[in-house]
Amino acid sequence: MSDDTLEFAAGGGLLHRRAFLAGGAVAAAAAALSGHAAAAATIGDDAPSWMTGPGSGFRGYGEPAGQESTVLRTILKPYGDLAPGAGVALTPLQNLEGAITPNGLHFERSHNGRPGIDPDRHKLLIHGLVARPLKFTVESLLRYPMASRICFIECAGNSFFNSNLFPEAMQVPVGMIHGLVSGAEWTGIPLATLLDEAGLDPRGKWILAEGADAAAMSRSIPIEKALGDAVIALYQNGERLRPEQGYPVRLLLPGYEGNMSIKWLRRIKVTAGPTHTKDETSKYSDLMPDGKARQFTFRMGVKSTITRPATGATMRGAGLYQISGLAWSGHGRVARVEISADGGKSWAEAALDGPVLPMALTRFRLPWLWQGAPALLQSRATDEAGNMQVRREVWSAQYGAGHLYHCNAIQTWGIAANGDVSNVYI
Amino acid sequence: MSDDTLEFAAGGGLLHRRAFLAGGAVAAAAAALSGHAAAAATIGDDAPSWMTGPGSGFRGYGEPAGQESTVLRTILKPYGDLAPGAGVALTPLQNLEGAITPNGLHFERSHNGRPGIDPDRHKLLIHGLVARPLKFTVESLLRYPMASRICFIECAGNSFFNSNLFPEAMQVPVGMIHGLVSGAEWTGIPLATLLDEAGLDPRGKWILAEGADAAAMSRSIPIEKALGDAVIALYQNGERLRPEQGYPVRLLLPGYEGNMSIKWLRRIKVTAGPTHTKDETSKYSDLMPDGKARQFTFRMGVKSTITRPATGATMRGAGLYQISGLAWSGHGRVARVEISADGGKSWAEAALDGPVLPMALTRFRLPWLWQGAPALLQSRATDEAGNMQVRREVWSAQYGAGHLYHCNAIQTWGIAANGDVSNVYI
Repeated sequence: MSDDTLEFAAGGGLLHRRAFLAGGAVAAAAAALSGHAAAAATIGDDAPSWMTGPGSGFRGYGEPAGQESTVLRTILKPYGDLAPGAGVALTPLQNLEGAITPNGLHFERSHNGRPGIDPDRHKLLIHGLVARPLKFTVESLLRYPMASRICFIECAGNSFFNSNLFPEAMQVPVGMIHGLVSGAEWTGIPLATLLDEAGLDPRGKWILAEGADAAAMSRSIPIEKALGDAVIALYQNGERLRPEQGYPVRLLLPGYEGNMSIKWLRRIKVTAGPTHTKDETSKYSDLMPDGKARQFTFRMGVKSTITRPATGATMRGAGLYQISGLAWSGHGRVARVEISADGGKSWAEAALDGPVLPMALTRFRLPWLWQGAPALLQSRATDEAGNMQVRREVWSAQYGAGHLYHCNAIQTWGIAANGDVSNVYI
Repeated sequence: MSDDTLEFAAGGGLLHRRAFLAGGAVAAAAAALSGHAAAAATIGDDAPSWMTGPGSGFRGYGEPAGQESTVLRTILKPYGDLAPGAGVALTPLQNLEGAITPNGLHFERSHNGRPGIDPDRHKLLIHGLVARPLKFTVESLLRYPMASRICFIECAGNSFFNSNLFPEAMQVPVGMIHGLVSGAEWTGIPLATLLDEAGLDPRGKWILAEGADAAAMSRSIPIEKALGDAVIALYQNGERLRPEQGYPVRLLLPGYEGNMSIKWLRRIKVTAGPTHTKDETSKYSDLMPDGKARQFTFRMGVKSTITRPATGATMRGAGLYQISGLAWSGHGRVARVEISADGGKSWAEAALDGPVLPMALTRFRLPWLWQGAPALLQSRATDEAGNMQVRREVWSAQYGAGHLYHCNAIQTWGIAANGDVSNVYI
């Protein structure tokens, strides 16, 4: 394969997104064999040890391969052992592919630990400005009509390592920077069904949702969202919710700040206005440059990051690579992802793995002929509402010093001549 | 809610598929509270024990809730301890929702156990009628261009409990009957890319794919499929393949018999014709009524089953239910699923959870007002190629006595007046 036969789409070696499909443009990473060696390489002469005796028996519930036991969520506990359940467990994006996150690696943000709820004793109360206050057992919820959808949940504080909290770029794996986002198929009851049964009072313009954790995590949500696509979720990727994700029942607000999708949901109170809980006054507000804080930034902005190559992995020599990453937006579908290898001077459009769903992680890919020179690799997503990511410098200037939420700036990976990948601020 | 306000779509209480969305038609399974009790039901007066102290800390890799520990694959080993790795582990469909199967519960069919493969020593050989025989390490495969897709894998022997092997209907949970099918998002390299690199000889019309298990599971595959949508899969629902699913690398042939998606893939040989391996002569052929066997029925037929209500669960009294089930076809997308509550006399069209993808599990749903009378509940899927499921009696007559593969007959669940659910042949 010579460079002459390749269709370059932007500077620094970025190829057209269909280059791999055109044939011939492959990584050539395999070892060619002589015809003799290939003909001989059948069972018998070189049978590996695992073919010479029966394998292991069946398991009721499977686990990852032992060799993958280092693929784990990264746990950060800001208060250490003083509050071991306050913190985050981040999805290791550098190890994953596709757009579904396996349940064992879905990110977790908890404020005072994972409660050990007895599902036979847990209740969901709907009260406040309703005609008929109702209390649901989990068993009764399981009889209600459900629907399934694939969508992302992203913590409002995702990417805090790139926020104004950290004026210098931290050199940590991509999953530690951006891994407070995950994707899954969620199944549950439209909240509108239950509110309808309770009989909404016309004065009810907001709801308060409260969790059954020791932090009693609580958020105010406009009634339009509650009656729109809000879901009382009971299943995650086919099976009942994981404990970290709110077992036995959580709220799911597609596209909104993750903390609003209240886990371990115990109570929905219909109210005339927002409740201004501790979780929306002392936290989860946006610090502006003038020192004031902005409340109620519900939707997560359009965002993307390249996950391969990225920090946490090294490039292994010049040659053909497939750039792979994730894009998403709280405003709907991802419309376009562009990639630059020259720090934003020129851009090439990436291919998107279908189906591209609203408020769902979208995997993008682009072939790249890396010729061994230093490069500044970026992805820039645009959503169907027309929102586009901006440079970190531009994002940062919109907020006050130390502000950390809603960081959706363009991520820049610096590729050194030796293949090292670093987090770069520009 | 009175019956007068409901729009019936077929006999036996089947409602229009949008009935739940119209408002008012809800299960009314919740307990109504007095206004006083509801107002008092906030934290403090009735705080459950799990809210009165910090919860548990974070885990690197999560697990299901302890209360869900009975949700397991069902293991069937026809040779018992003589061959503990020969048999099946079936997905517990009665416990699941949505269309993604969590990796820990994806079905497994293995012929001589799950090999303990060292991924650093495993190789994939491509040889035979090619210009350049190639041997790939797993590390080299991980550099090739990938794509992701959601699709089902179904064992050719799925639903054998309903096949000609069992002239009397077995009373086992739905997952034990139909649980040799699962759905996942798979990520890997188009096989066409690797065959192109090896340089296909025009005489190559088939491939032989061979696994690195002790059974050396081997199947012949037409070159059109190999160059079409065949994938060298490396990831399953985001993470690297599970050991049961072929770690570190498997073939994936969307819509084809599951056993052809060779796990632990070690060799692809390009050949002029089919190899007629033991796995396609002594097994996985279809016994016809005249005693002859038909070879190479690659595609899995259009199929569906109601998973709730179904065997393994009991109906809890008359009232409104949501019927929920899965449909799929090896010939493309599911076009339509119809449901009958009167043993096939009348049919109502079910709603399909989107997006409806080709060769993927599709969740269907329909509201049902069960009035407590005995019922015969069926689902009947039609795919976009126009194939439609037939009654078991019709399916059975197409094959010889004892034939077990490709059983895609309509499943009938008998609902007794007391709510018991049974497997019924009609």
